[in-house]
Amino acid sequence: MSWLDAIKWNTDGLVPVIAQEATTGKVLTLAWANRAALTATQQENRAVYWSRSRQKLWRKGEESGHVQRLKEIRLDCDNDAVLLLVEQVGGIACHTGHERCFYQKLQGDRWVDAEPVLKRPDEIYRK
Amino acid sequence: MSWLDAIKWNTDGLVPVIAQEATTGKVLTLAWANRAALTATQQENRAVYWSRSRQKLWRKGEESGHVQRLKEIRLDCDNDAVLLLVEQVGGIACHTGHERCFYQKLQGDRWVDAEPVLKRPDEIYRK
Repeated sequence: MSWLDAIKWNTDGLVPVIAQEATTGKVLTLAWANRAALTATQQENRAVYWSRSRQKLWRKGEESGHVQRLKEIRLDCDNDAVLLLVEQVGGIACHTGHERCFYQKLQGDRWVDAEPVLKRPDEIYRK
Repeated sequence: MSWLDAIKWNTDGLVPVIAQEATTGKVLTLAWANRAALTATQQENRAVYWSRSRQKLWRKGEESGHVQRLKEIRLDCDNDAVLLLVEQVGGIACHTGHERCFYQKLQGDRWVDAEPVLKRPDEIYRK
């Protein structure tokens, strides 16, 4: 039995995956993985997700260079959520150029951008 | 427009919610919330989820006393994942008696319990 068989995949064959910076503890992203993505994550020692919008494997950093090097894979008590501890190459996890995707903070009754853009997207994704 | 309208709810009207200990940075749980759950989270200043198994609001800690006091609510760049920074009362987030739900660690090709049970479930959930 493979370690992948322990995971409770949802009806789309996916599991939510949290990426956390191993050194700072910052939660970077919530993404999704199917069996192929988690297999690749383990084998290639980097975060590989399933892009639900593009419907294909998404090797995090393949365009931007902002690879997430794998440090550890964790599974929760219900076997339906995965936590990756990673080293975020380049210090930028988010396609918006923020350090991480969770940069919006609820202040009173509205969302405010609580963290700076470290690099403009057009500089990250040069053609 | 309410802050809740900015959130992209899935087809079940839910959004995944990560709970993170504000002081230690440990990722405690991945749960789900609907509008009522997030409204209650903000109003009551504690984590309130939607229990998919029981199909009802789940005031975290309502039976165990292991309440998650709210420190901050964050939203990701795609508006489809929420991060709660919380203070975990009692130091136990998981119904198994572990500090947190992500206690299983991939070692080679198998999952191992990498963290101790701090309190037996029958002691947490006394009748």
